[in-house]
Amino acid sequence: MTVLILTCKEDVTADMVVAKLAASGVPVVRLDTADLPGRVTLSGEYLPGVFLGYLSAGRRVICLSALRSIWVRHPGVPASRVAKPSEWLAEESSQTLYGMLQCTDARWMNQPDAAARARRKPWQLQVARRSRLPVPATLITTFPKAARDFADRFPDLVVRSVSGTHPQEPNSVVPTSRAEPDADFAAVACGPTLLQRRVSKRADIRLTAVGNQVLAARKVVRPNADPDEIDVRFASSTAPWRPVDVPPSIEDGVRAYLRRAELSYGAFDFAEDRYGIWWFLECNQSDQFGFVEVETGQPIAQTVADWLAAPNPRASPTDPMRLWGQAVTEVPSLNWTA
Amino acid sequence: MTVLILTCKEDVTADMVVAKLAASGVPVVRLDTADLPGRVTLSGEYLPGVFLGYLSAGRRVICLSALRSIWVRHPGVPASRVAKPSEWLAEESSQTLYGMLQCTDARWMNQPDAAARARRKPWQLQVARRSRLPVPATLITTFPKAARDFADRFPDLVVRSVSGTHPQEPNSVVPTSRAEPDADFAAVACGPTLLQRRVSKRADIRLTAVGNQVLAARKVVRPNADPDEIDVRFASSTAPWRPVDVPPSIEDGVRAYLRRAELSYGAFDFAEDRYGIWWFLECNQSDQFGFVEVETGQPIAQTVADWLAAPNPRASPTDPMRLWGQAVTEVPSLNWTA
Repeated sequence: MTVLILTCKEDVTADMVVAKLAASGVPVVRLDTADLPGRVTLSGEYLPGVFLGYLSAGRRVICLSALRSIWVRHPGVPASRVAKPSEWLAEESSQTLYGMLQCTDARWMNQPDAAARARRKPWQLQVARRSRLPVPATLITTFPKAARDFADRFPDLVVRSVSGTHPQEPNSVVPTSRAEPDADFAAVACGPTLLQRRVSKRADIRLTAVGNQVLAARKVVRPNADPDEIDVRFASSTAPWRPVDVPPSIEDGVRAYLRRAELSYGAFDFAEDRYGIWWFLECNQSDQFGFVEVETGQPIAQTVADWLAAPNPRASPTDPMRLWGQAVTEVPSLNWTA
Repeated sequence: MTVLILTCKEDVTADMVVAKLAASGVPVVRLDTADLPGRVTLSGEYLPGVFLGYLSAGRRVICLSALRSIWVRHPGVPASRVAKPSEWLAEESSQTLYGMLQCTDARWMNQPDAAARARRKPWQLQVARRSRLPVPATLITTFPKAARDFADRFPDLVVRSVSGTHPQEPNSVVPTSRAEPDADFAAVACGPTLLQRRVSKRADIRLTAVGNQVLAARKVVRPNADPDEIDVRFASSTAPWRPVDVPPSIEDGVRAYLRRAELSYGAFDFAEDRYGIWWFLECNQSDQFGFVEVETGQPIAQTVADWLAAPNPRASPTDPMRLWGQAVTEVPSLNWTA
């Protein structure tokens, strides 16, 4: 029973987890989806009563029915390394790969469709509210008058992007910034804008949820910090991330969130205010966690590895070649690595 | 309680349904998502205990909490009619629109994420098999030897595309064609290829499923038809579509399929063989049905309209302006059409 990791070649976060899985003796196949077709080959046969799927990467062949779990970490665009890349071939390859992997009973971290939905910030805010996590008052709008009214009620605002990153490669993150109190919101009509009450924070919180496990880290904001430094990713602070206990109500909320969102991994960002309330900012479902692990010593990679390594009762541990030979007697054993 | 229809300007299929809804006096807002931002504006406010979302198109304003249902027919790419379209703005607008609509309790035909998953043909085949619909033996592969072996066992094969249409605009459909018995499958390594046992068919079946209703039409294949004419969409046949009863096992299978796929609308294509068996070919979740309705006289548009018009017990019929005024007393009534 194999763990399949889909990610690009240079991914330190994946390296950390692969090392833990290797130490436990769990078989792992790691591949970059950009190599399909090419270095990665895939084949699936649908016959009455049986689906036989195979994936090979380099010299390794795995039977899809023997997959334990699939980690979609940071995979490349399918078919992007062929001689003549095209949108068409990328789509054919993507649908083949993910469609076929979804034919298996493997556990996902995270299901691609749940992950796509979970990226939508308006939906995140609603799921957080329904999961009883505190959410700062937020407006998303293309209507200047609505923005102006909101700013009158909540004069201290931040502006965030809705989708988080520019879609082109390489992705560039748009920092959260402070809205001027007397801002002219006419430009809101040109594109949806997310305005949020600024939480006057005394710390940033990064909570990593893996299945039922939650691990949180806290980074103190200096009392004399520039209030315009909103985005922890771009702040000048040298304060370290430190482990912190998770309040029970937050732990319950995070678990409810993952359940509703059908995610098995989520990296939650909170802002802690002076009363100690953790305000939900967002939940990313494919963020790296290496920087938190290095600074806090928290065993995040081990927790991810444990989740991926858990036995899948529905997977078949049978040798693929033997299964193939038994189920479809007309087929000679294939030499897949030929 | 309003029905929201997302589609492009010229869509005869949508016109047919709008006419039925109008005849029943059900309020409808039809808009093209390409007009957001611009002619379409959107605003959503997240406050403790309340989410207030509004959508306006032209002079109409609707409260998102009063939506009855949402029909995603054939919407344009968000933000494609702005002065300077960009991938970034398209992504921001798309996430805002669909993320905010997903904050409502409206019934969907179909949920965008379920629809995206349902387009993947490898997954369709597995769902059909698990729903006990007959599926012709199929191979999807990038491995030439696997294709050769499959062709030796099933010499009479057709080749289909995996993803159905070219992703660029305008979409072009790739016809299904017959594979030569002595084909050299070396090119399979260049892109995933779907090979399927050819069903020697005596009729094509188009089954339209709307919620729990199924309506099927049948188009006879001439006995002397060219066996290379595989794809009904490109065949020279002049035989008309005629209504046909649905075998109970197929009806059960189709309902199971929609349940598994979380779809409320599906257009199923079957090939009927000489024994009367309906072989599942594919299920499209956004196909037009006008041509079948016109030829068969089946009330497909009415069935879709009835599904969309069914009351949503979770929607609020409250007047949006009154709701806004009551819930957030600080906000003056907005003149949204100003």
